[in-house]
Amino acid sequence: MDFPRDPSRRRLLAHGAALVAVTSGAAHAQTSPPASTPAVPAEAKPFPPYVAWKNQSQMIQHTATTIETKRSAYGTSIVTPADRLYIRNNLPAPDASIVNDRDGWSMAVEGVRSPRTLTVRELKSMGIETTATVLQCSGNGRGYFPSKPSGTKWQVGAAGCVIWSGVPVRSVVAALGGLADGARFITGTGGEKLPDGIDPKSVMVERSVPITNLEDALLAWEMNGEPLPHAHGGPLRLIVPGYSGVNNIKYIKRLAFTAQESDAAIQKTGYRISPPGQKHSPSEPSVWEMGLKSWINGPGPDTGPVKAGTVQIHGVAMGGMQAVKRVDVSIDGGQTWREAKLVGPDLGRFAWRQFVLPVKLEPGTYQLVCRAQDVKFNWQEETTPENSGGYLNAGWRAHGFSVTVA
Amino acid sequence: MDFPRDPSRRRLLAHGAALVAVTSGAAHAQTSPPASTPAVPAEAKPFPPYVAWKNQSQMIQHTATTIETKRSAYGTSIVTPADRLYIRNNLPAPDASIVNDRDGWSMAVEGVRSPRTLTVRELKSMGIETTATVLQCSGNGRGYFPSKPSGTKWQVGAAGCVIWSGVPVRSVVAALGGLADGARFITGTGGEKLPDGIDPKSVMVERSVPITNLEDALLAWEMNGEPLPHAHGGPLRLIVPGYSGVNNIKYIKRLAFTAQESDAAIQKTGYRISPPGQKHSPSEPSVWEMGLKSWINGPGPDTGPVKAGTVQIHGVAMGGMQAVKRVDVSIDGGQTWREAKLVGPDLGRFAWRQFVLPVKLEPGTYQLVCRAQDVKFNWQEETTPENSGGYLNAGWRAHGFSVTVA
Repeated sequence: MDFPRDPSRRRLLAHGAALVAVTSGAAHAQTSPPASTPAVPAEAKPFPPYVAWKNQSQMIQHTATTIETKRSAYGTSIVTPADRLYIRNNLPAPDASIVNDRDGWSMAVEGVRSPRTLTVRELKSMGIETTATVLQCSGNGRGYFPSKPSGTKWQVGAAGCVIWSGVPVRSVVAALGGLADGARFITGTGGEKLPDGIDPKSVMVERSVPITNLEDALLAWEMNGEPLPHAHGGPLRLIVPGYSGVNNIKYIKRLAFTAQESDAAIQKTGYRISPPGQKHSPSEPSVWEMGLKSWINGPGPDTGPVKAGTVQIHGVAMGGMQAVKRVDVSIDGGQTWREAKLVGPDLGRFAWRQFVLPVKLEPGTYQLVCRAQDVKFNWQEETTPENSGGYLNAGWRAHGFSVTVA
Repeated sequence: MDFPRDPSRRRLLAHGAALVAVTSGAAHAQTSPPASTPAVPAEAKPFPPYVAWKNQSQMIQHTATTIETKRSAYGTSIVTPADRLYIRNNLPAPDASIVNDRDGWSMAVEGVRSPRTLTVRELKSMGIETTATVLQCSGNGRGYFPSKPSGTKWQVGAAGCVIWSGVPVRSVVAALGGLADGARFITGTGGEKLPDGIDPKSVMVERSVPITNLEDALLAWEMNGEPLPHAHGGPLRLIVPGYSGVNNIKYIKRLAFTAQESDAAIQKTGYRISPPGQKHSPSEPSVWEMGLKSWINGPGPDTGPVKAGTVQIHGVAMGGMQAVKRVDVSIDGGQTWREAKLVGPDLGRFAWRQFVLPVKLEPGTYQLVCRAQDVKFNWQEETTPENSGGYLNAGWRAHGFSVTVA
């Protein structure tokens, strides 16, 4: 296990790298000693401006809007820092000027007894709550489906554990007189600018989740102790704990309590669990609750050679809507298992837990896998059935890998 | 309450500001839109290079080695991000090149049955544990002592809540055969370069804490999910949960289990609770355990005008060695109190808790104070007795302030 180097220097260098594109000579722009390895590998494309502040050496850029965390870049201190948290935007982010006046951002609330438009400033007067959740792209793990469904081939890195702070949605509803009759869904609409000349419903980011999430949902303006970065949905983002990324609406501009699910394509026919090779249909299950899942981060497939002796096998485990109870680790591909220890603070049922298992390894090749159990005694599935969108892969076997110990 | 703006842009601008000094024209060096306010106020001195990556607009620079977090910069999501965490170095930080090979950093272990020198690589094979602690400078709150003792006039910002990850000290001791006979203290020595020509004992950073801390102490290589920044003690720092900052040795190069406290000046005569105006003496209590303390962050003295209506009064409360049980808030300087709600995940007894109290405020002037109670039913003290070093100020009255509501 070889943890990466000083994030501060990397960040500087990442900026340095970004600046190369726009300054005539940035070699003298470093304010700390040069790193022994470049922050951005020679073959890697620099990140686009809206995420140029990310720790580029710790991430994998698939496209300008799909960037994942390297498996080796997850630390063991539970939280995922903003500068190494994955990026997945269904539409280009709105202009960054929207965070110039964070408190002035406004959101329409509909489907309550007294509907009205609220600014972030007003929301801040209605309550403060803080919740840790796993934020995970619906397609995380898609790269491990054998049939290679179309879409970004995410490995484990389209996920992170984040501490959000904002106002509970239930407090906003209470302040506006309660739910209107017939509300069965929480529907959030993102504030992205839509392309001209095409049906807005075909591209807009608008998702509905069951009203049962009213108890836990949050309108967040802060992430890990800092104002919510623009690239992650700032000034304001809907957080639906336990639900996959797409349901956590960035730049939220409308929050509606509706009788029906949104008829936007992203809800109606997008993000559905459909049989392989078939188009999505509204009759199929929506990609909502995340499943029970775990994976090993160290030593990892990208850790480099492992030295014989005692090795601390560590990773993360998440329960979706339930807390994780236990994690088992196998070094022989699942033939035999040992129970790992859960370490560190428990940030609640929507967060992930860190686990560690010390194992003495002789030289040889090992197939490392892990599987989690939740507090309802469910075990993580061995294999997630294929689906046409390649969503919600949580199979423990596919998330394993081999390491060679010398 | 007006939370600060996008940290990513600020960070960029902070770099931009730092770069101004070394590039001929940095106006075109921004990769995001210009901020409406400058990251570094015109009158503020840019941060020195080793901390140039900090979010300068959110901090107060007293000197190059004493930099605190603004009260308004504490969020409500418990953790304090590295880029707004305070800086207090007793000696200049070693050259940043020490983090070029983090795993190669070595530390001598003495006072065990099998003393030896261990690299971080070896420590990483011995165990992983994760602990959240309040890191707080011994002098935090000094600025609120009426007698103005000499030293940095910290307000509330020489503190933060950090999630550390590393190996438990007890695991290292176990791996080296257990403690040698007579060990009564854990003594850590920092790896700072000492100035030539003066007695090393007079300047070296070497502190001893009671051996009772063996259960909880950690050798940390990671902070909030990223490799421990050089400015905060990376590659390796001793963390003594519940103990004030100076006991958490940065760049630790020697860990000794000793029969006596260190005879370095910083331990022998420094950091002692002495009567006002008197020099420190080894017979006086060392600045070790932190006390029960809380303060309000928003609305704060630097929040700006507060609008009449419901206001969410929020802040943090820490118990030192015990968990916090309760926090009360007063808007009339302590004449009447209301119990606040503790919000967010509980990161354990060494972390702080966030608290929130919604209060309806009519136009007028209010004196905001808060006081915490720990699980042993102790209440935070109203006034901390003065001491010559101005240490460990935890008095609730002095940490209050007035706000005007219009």
